[in-house]
Amino acid sequence: MRDFNNSQPFLVMISKNFLKQLSSYKQKKFRDQDQVFVVEGNKCVKELLFSNFQIISIIGKDSWIDENKSLLKNLPEEKIFSCTDKDLERISNLSTPDKVFAVAKQQGDSLIDIQENDLTLVLDNISNPGNLGTILRLAVWFGVKNIVCNQQTVDCYNPKVVQASMGALFHCNICYTDVAQWLKSINKSTNIYGTVLQGGKNIYKEKLSKQGLIIIGNESNGISEEVKQRINHPITIPSFAGKGEVESLNASIATAIILSEFKRQTALD
Amino acid sequence: MRDFNNSQPFLVMISKNFLKQLSSYKQKKFRDQDQVFVVEGNKCVKELLFSNFQIISIIGKDSWIDENKSLLKNLPEEKIFSCTDKDLERISNLSTPDKVFAVAKQQGDSLIDIQENDLTLVLDNISNPGNLGTILRLAVWFGVKNIVCNQQTVDCYNPKVVQASMGALFHCNICYTDVAQWLKSINKSTNIYGTVLQGGKNIYKEKLSKQGLIIIGNESNGISEEVKQRINHPITIPSFAGKGEVESLNASIATAIILSEFKRQTALD
Repeated sequence: MRDFNNSQPFLVMISKNFLKQLSSYKQKKFRDQDQVFVVEGNKCVKELLFSNFQIISIIGKDSWIDENKSLLKNLPEEKIFSCTDKDLERISNLSTPDKVFAVAKQQGDSLIDIQENDLTLVLDNISNPGNLGTILRLAVWFGVKNIVCNQQTVDCYNPKVVQASMGALFHCNICYTDVAQWLKSINKSTNIYGTVLQGGKNIYKEKLSKQGLIIIGNESNGISEEVKQRINHPITIPSFAGKGEVESLNASIATAIILSEFKRQTALD
Repeated sequence: MRDFNNSQPFLVMISKNFLKQLSSYKQKKFRDQDQVFVVEGNKCVKELLFSNFQIISIIGKDSWIDENKSLLKNLPEEKIFSCTDKDLERISNLSTPDKVFAVAKQQGDSLIDIQENDLTLVLDNISNPGNLGTILRLAVWFGVKNIVCNQQTVDCYNPKVVQASMGALFHCNICYTDVAQWLKSINKSTNIYGTVLQGGKNIYKEKLSKQGLIIIGNESNGISEEVKQRINHPITIPSFAGKGEVESLNASIATAIILSEFKRQTALD
């Protein structure tokens, strides 16, 4: 292990080949091939260091590494690399790269056992990375551990999702599966909630359960037909808009309102 | 007026000088100088046409103008211009310009009379255009007509705000003022709600009022000190996150949860 009390600057400079490899992680194909993902920026990398995720490498400017010695002290020396601003520009997904870049191991896709759990979010074709990141933050805020995504939902290891999640990604169990098939296989008594445009019960008046699945549909098209058929508790968020006014809530905003109402009803006694 | 039953293509092509002027509206300085703003894309321009906003010009591809004859029939001929894809690329704020671009008149900044109204949103340093757009959509959804912004809040006529609001901008009264000063001048009995990190009442348990101001603070720094002093009903959104987990909600998500809870408590009887 490196002696962090030694105040000498880091000498393990990053190689050209390694830079090329890191740069390749902008593409899902290469991330999945190595089963890794990228985390950038001071705040998110610190959240990663505090999490249970396995860290492959930390690539930082000397100043950042120096300031964060104590956080890095349990990390083997060969995982820490010193880099320049120019290196960061090359590998970064950000328009303004921060001082540090990390590579971590993806979590395996073990199917979530919904029997033991309380609320589970089910994402059906969420396509906007910012929305998925925001939904993960909401899940953590409202104590929802498990998130099941259909395979068309944007990759949770997409750099934009990682950034938008602000570290929430590290505290969720996320799995990708054929949601329509999976819903057919689960216990018939499971509560399956989903927002529908017509015929749903007013979420504020419906008695919501502590246990069950909450399906969130695509930003433009809502919940897909096949998945919609599995909903046994259709709900709606009532609108108070005036006549002729635009009425639309995006997927992450709808998730916020729904989770807030579930927790208000079921977790406050 | 142009005869819209005449199926000839439009001949009023756009001039180079006009293109230059339209392109200048990317900058706030030039928008404010002419007291105008820009609306882009089929969906948003249609919302504009249905609204009470004064339209200065519609610049569209022939195909769009042809398809929307009936919507344009009340608009004087000299306000409608035919343009090419190349023209749109030059004037557009979008990475992929749509088929139509409109210029509309800004609404004057008349100070909102909160006496007559129910809930009013007060925005203190909202800096992200996407957040402001989302907050406007939420305001319309939850029937909040009036929005008071401090002068550091992002310009509601910023093209990114206009796009993100999805037309909601056309249904809100928005004014910009020195919020800290304005709050000093209002009736002492007015309910002023704001989220605080410490000492706030749990929003789900507090009895919320039908009338009052709801202050939403900056994405990173919350409500500014001077404004915070005016809050007479401090509230918090409780978190259900586990120990050591990240807890953060962005400004528009917090607005969603707060407005949802206000309306649930006060508008459903």
